Amino acid sequence: MNKLLLFISVGLFSIVTAHGQKKPVDYVNPFIGTAKMGHTYPGATVPFGAIQLSPETDTLSYVFNGKYNKDVYRYCAGYQYDDPTIVGFSHTHFSGTGHSDLGDFLIMPTVGTLQLNPGTADRPGSGYRSRYSHQHEKASPNYYQVYLSDYGINAELTATERVGVHRYTFPKSDQSHLIVDLMAGIYNYPEKNVWTVVRVVNDTLITGYRQTNGWARTRTVYFAMSLSKPFKSYGSATPEKETVYKGFWRKFNQRNNFPDLASANLKLYFDFDTEDQEQIIVKLAVSPVSQKNALENLQQEAAPYSFDQLWNSGRDKWSKELEKINIETISEDDKVNFYTSLYHTFLGPTLYMDHNREYKGLDQDVHRAQGFTNYTTFSLWDTYRALHPFFNIVQPQRNADMVSSMMQHYNQSVLGMLPIWSHYANDNWCMSGYHSVSVIADAILKGTYKGDAEQALEACVRTSQRRDFEGIGAYTDLGYIPAESNSNSVSSTLEYAYDDWCIAQLAKKIGKDDIYQTYIKRSQNWKNVFDSTIGFMRPKDAMGNFVANFDVLDTHGQGFIEGNSWNYSLFIPHDPMSLVRIYGGDKKFITHLDSLFEMHLPDEFFENTEDITREGIIGNYVHGNEPSHHVAYLYNYAGAPHKTQKRVRDIIQRMYRPTPDGLGGNDDCGQMSAWYLFGALGFYPLSPGATTYDIGSPVVKRAVIHLDNGRKFEIVAHNQGAQNVFVKQVMLNGKKIDNWKIDHQDIMNGGKLEYFMTAKRK
Amino acid sequence: MNKLLLFISVGLFSIVTAHGQKKPVDYVNPFIGTAKMGHTYPGATVPFGAIQLSPETDTLSYVFNGKYNKDVYRYCAGYQYDDPTIVGFSHTHFSGTGHSDLGDFLIMPTVGTLQLNPGTADRPGSGYRSRYSHQHEKASPNYYQVYLSDYGINAELTATERVGVHRYTFPKSDQSHLIVDLMAGIYNYPEKNVWTVVRVVNDTLITGYRQTNGWARTRTVYFAMSLSKPFKSYGSATPEKETVYKGFWRKFNQRNNFPDLASANLKLYFDFDTEDQEQIIVKLAVSPVSQKNALENLQQEAAPYSFDQLWNSGRDKWSKELEKINIETISEDDKVNFYTSLYHTFLGPTLYMDHNREYKGLDQDVHRAQGFTNYTTFSLWDTYRALHPFFNIVQPQRNADMVSSMMQHYNQSVLGMLPIWSHYANDNWCMSGYHSVSVIADAILKGTYKGDAEQALEACVRTSQRRDFEGIGAYTDLGYIPAESNSNSVSSTLEYAYDDWCIAQLAKKIGKDDIYQTYIKRSQNWKNVFDSTIGFMRPKDAMGNFVANFDVLDTHGQGFIEGNSWNYSLFIPHDPMSLVRIYGGDKKFITHLDSLFEMHLPDEFFENTEDITREGIIGNYVHGNEPSHHVAYLYNYAGAPHKTQKRVRDIIQRMYRPTPDGLGGNDDCGQMSAWYLFGALGFYPLSPGATTYDIGSPVVKRAVIHLDNGRKFEIVAHNQGAQNVFVKQVMLNGKKIDNWKIDHQDIMNGGKLEYFMTAKRK
Repeated sequence: MNKLLLFISVGLFSIVTAHGQKKPVDYVNPFIGTAKMGHTYPGATVPFGAIQLSPETDTLSYVFNGKYNKDVYRYCAGYQYDDPTIVGFSHTHFSGTGHSDLGDFLIMPTVGTLQLNPGTADRPGSGYRSRYSHQHEKASPNYYQVYLSDYGINAELTATERVGVHRYTFPKSDQSHLIVDLMAGIYNYPEKNVWTVVRVVNDTLITGYRQTNGWARTRTVYFAMSLSKPFKSYGSATPEKETVYKGFWRKFNQRNNFPDLASANLKLYFDFDTEDQEQIIVKLAVSPVSQKNALENLQQEAAPYSFDQLWNSGRDKWSKELEKINIETISEDDKVNFYTSLYHTFLGPTLYMDHNREYKGLDQDVHRAQGFTNYTTFSLWDTYRALHPFFNIVQPQRNADMVSSMMQHYNQSVLGMLPIWSHYANDNWCMSGYHSVSVIADAILKGTYKGDAEQALEACVRTSQRRDFEGIGAYTDLGYIPAESNSNSVSSTLEYAYDDWCIAQLAKKIGKDDIYQTYIKRSQNWKNVFDSTIGFMRPKDAMGNFVANFDVLDTHGQGFIEGNSWNYSLFIPHDPMSLVRIYGGDKKFITHLDSLFEMHLPDEFFENTEDITREGIIGNYVHGNEPSHHVAYLYNYAGAPHKTQKRVRDIIQRMYRPTPDGLGGNDDCGQMSAWYLFGALGFYPLSPGATTYDIGSPVVKRAVIHLDNGRKFEIVAHNQGAQNVFVKQVMLNGKKIDNWKIDHQDIMNGGKLEYFMTAKRK
Repeated sequence: MNKLLLFISVGLFSIVTAHGQKKPVDYVNPFIGTAKMGHTYPGATVPFGAIQLSPETDTLSYVFNGKYNKDVYRYCAGYQYDDPTIVGFSHTHFSGTGHSDLGDFLIMPTVGTLQLNPGTADRPGSGYRSRYSHQHEKASPNYYQVYLSDYGINAELTATERVGVHRYTFPKSDQSHLIVDLMAGIYNYPEKNVWTVVRVVNDTLITGYRQTNGWARTRTVYFAMSLSKPFKSYGSATPEKETVYKGFWRKFNQRNNFPDLASANLKLYFDFDTEDQEQIIVKLAVSPVSQKNALENLQQEAAPYSFDQLWNSGRDKWSKELEKINIETISEDDKVNFYTSLYHTFLGPTLYMDHNREYKGLDQDVHRAQGFTNYTTFSLWDTYRALHPFFNIVQPQRNADMVSSMMQHYNQSVLGMLPIWSHYANDNWCMSGYHSVSVIADAILKGTYKGDAEQALEACVRTSQRRDFEGIGAYTDLGYIPAESNSNSVSSTLEYAYDDWCIAQLAKKIGKDDIYQTYIKRSQNWKNVFDSTIGFMRPKDAMGNFVANFDVLDTHGQGFIEGNSWNYSLFIPHDPMSLVRIYGGDKKFITHLDSLFEMHLPDEFFENTEDITREGIIGNYVHGNEPSHHVAYLYNYAGAPHKTQKRVRDIIQRMYRPTPDGLGGNDDCGQMSAWYLFGALGFYPLSPGATTYDIGSPVVKRAVIHLDNGRKFEIVAHNQGAQNVFVKQVMLNGKKIDNWKIDHQDIMNGGKLEYFMTAKRK
């Protein structure tokens, strides 16, 4: 146990700083969300880094017996906190998604008889996986450690932007191995690996690439991997039928110590003699472009530095980002929640560009990012709501670069479309709407994106004109999507209407009145699917008749996605006053909203709602999915801000807990966390594209946002307390606010926002 | 029939020049070798061009019912003269190989009901293929024309270095189509296509790429294709199970008019309305690097020019190359044979570099060719013998660039090896030996390659030390390859011995005496497999015992490849005097050689000899394969030059005829043709790496070689005639030659070589 204690003390060392005072980075708990539905990963990464080096607790096939394997959903981020074994450590992960991919280049250190298959969790020893215990596992920003008890190996992970760094402490053995499983992957299936190339350049350097066809249709990741200790031998394995052993290559024995390998599927292993406590450092760089670029990334970022140097450097990067907001809170847990949320929001979009600025474009050609940093992983249906608006405050340069990345995506798109879900030189077309336009309009209206606004508007307009995408053609012609032509006919109609309002705002901003007129009109299209006889949004057929057999609580087959009519009927973020009106005025609308939060949703409906647990639902309000994220703030528009305040605090309390299973749904690339952060600071962007924020109820006692422009925006919640959830009064720079709104410019100017809290509703 | 006559007259126009006088280019008949075993293609190409745009008469699968399909062998170059139908026109072909690949981007114009499968030759109308007739078909350098009688379409092809240009003359139809079959390929099989991407950029521009796993393990060809007329509609097809229609891409109807396609297998079609005699020009550029580069190639080379301009420009390039040697001959047929052979020798190696000098390296990364032109398609086992030596005379700059290309291949090789068979950023490892060293030593000793000779020597040495390649380890340790370890144990031992001699010559040339000593010793290793008790080379086991049950006439399972012991026992090109000695002196050796040419090889052995027809054999001398290519010249070393002279003329007469079936074996990337050219000029490089040539018997009456250094080397055969095959005397610059040899420098200095011919042996 001595060795084990040593590992633990090393791990702990970083948590307590020299002065013993906890800094923001010390409050981050990467395990939050790793159990059940959060789909976060606990591994090592730097802010917005291309590497997410993290353990996999299983790598199931997306397809099982020819059918979709429901179990795979649990492994969107590779790791499930309740699992008993670890399969290995791979370099790329999405954070919080509800569908998945990646898991590139899985490495597992083992000792003893060589095993090249992972085996199963219920049969320890059946493969290369190992048991582990949470008692001997740690995670903090840019550091992950676990003791692999089947092998007596301590595994530590850290990362740079483009390099994953592994430190494995082996026992004494003449059968120590590193398995590099290039067949493993998240949401894997038998034909997912399209082609794999490996070159063992010398006994400490391996390069190659892997091309996959998954959620991303055509995705290639190149790598360059260095070993701190020369291997003594190595080998490869591939399924029997694979071509690696065919052709005139059969002249060589490609299984053992052969450096030039290629096949659809490939696994490698490297053998070592290790002394007791001997450490082997693996540094694996990725590139979207070439092995050469991966090698350059490796050399520039990681080769000259020790594990500890890289760990500290990455931790410093986290500190720098996390310290953009200093807070005082009622409880330490609030700080954990806050800084972990901040951490989660800074996990993506992720860098997609080599050290030499080259990246692979949507057109599958190589481009050089001129004047911007290229990003990928835009889960826009989720993140347009709060994540990108949050970036406009705390990451304006990055958000501007993200808009530039979207614009390049558009330029490279043969469909003439901005990204729907930008995924490693692909669009995976996940979810609905064309919400890039929201991010772009918001960034331009808030002064974040300073690129060519006319070009941006053109991109938005052209995207909204792609008739063969999700009913846009019919939407353009009829003002709504007919039920028979699309299974999301109502939710897409509502989302397009909002998106069109964003286009209108952008057009207005740059004086394109004709476009403004067209799109402001389209933004009213929500009216075409509102059935006033029942008071809900409802699918309509091409003849203009609302469909029969309609259930306002069900989602599936009812014209909606990730939300039923109850939730989606409130989705007119750009025109909340109309919403109040169609529901019969303030009082009726308040009652309606209250019903949402307080009704009982029968299990049969819950079971059909994607991506959330029972815990992710309050009444019929589904926080675990995004369409209702603005809903709590709607009370403000019906003269009941105290209800907004109470609901926000309730949601925060129930949906964000500082435990592995503490998230009420998928974190969705930071959207859920960004919602929390706005909530905790006391305001929310109800309708991105508008520059205003709606006042809620802060969680913090005090917060200082250190803006990139050098100014500070201070938030003070006087008389803050767990019960003091109501805001008596709000003052901006000493001046009372009456309309429960502040403007983006108020924040960017720097200043002070004061909330006067009370336990009794105002 | 009027239309047809019009096509024919257009086709004929180019054959007769303005002055009515035939030029070298007019003598080339690209159909020679297209029937049976020649494996040449009749299509359009420029000298050493990356595009070989040529018809396929069938595209069979390499695998049929799970087994090797012998029929596929006939289609190494895509076209078989005796076939009744044409399947389409693809852009890349090997010339004369005995195994194959390529056939990229097959295009077929059709009219009427859309058919996306080729159908079968025995059932016209069963697919998109069409019947045709040789009466309505033409081929000349950089031009091919055929009338597709099933559709009434006249097809014409021409090319630039990197662009294939099609001119299709359609009948009037509202159902005219271009099929672009990206699943088609030469030596195809069900899993050969790894991945295909297509982007329909607009109604006249399509880009994409196709990645295959065939003879080349990892090969990607990018393309950019322009249409002279906008299509009216288009569509795609893919096997049912393919992923193109899976994932969230299912939101789109990808079958019709959808521009963003990717799948393992993909076919496209484009629809047009055509008027009677309307022409559609297709220009398809290839690139080893990217769609962007393919587009640049298209724009730089072909976009601004008409079909006729490009045809003429390519024809002029051919004229320039072919006019490097002017000849006078006894018959017009000799000119056809000569210039067609010259044409065939200039078909490869082929350009492998974009207009911007980028190319894909053996390491699968992109490189830029600095200071040289990069080439691929090095069938070195064949071409080191005569093709590259021939280039040292007539294409020295290109041969130097080819050596540079080999050196880059070496630099990019993780195995540390020069190419065995360089194949589009791959080595396909076909055949034996490490004959790059011969080409390199020859080019350096003859002053052609002016790069770093020490580096070149290091590459040669390191290649010869790759112990796991084809028995090199055992060869190094024992001085021969044991029979049990390699099926080519004897032929490889002999080839290594010769190659080692080449390394020794290079080492000597640059004063590396230790390397010289090592390798000159290794060059004697042929002695280790010579069984003096039977007078033949014979496999030996690891214990040093010659194997029992040995048949000197058989090839298979006897330790040889593409040649039996009779032929291979004469393979000591670097030490012919020893050969004479071990066969017991001049007289016995002459008898032995005569036996080779005059014995009867029973059918059972012929049937087991690869790559040749019965016609490719004279007695037991196999000209259709390469190992005996030097044999006719061995008489010179036994005091019987008249026998060399007679044999050479005999071989030329029997193996090179001006007809489609006129070649006695695969042309093997120009090696057979280069053998002819040396033969026809009257000398031959018995042992490349030596600067001398052995005198044979010329076919020409007169020849002038216009050397790149501005000098002329004139060859005159006095008293030349069909029967006058013996050379009484040879004079160089008026000085009698006694040793039946000239030196490379004699040629490069310019001057005059005179043969005095006679019908009686000297």
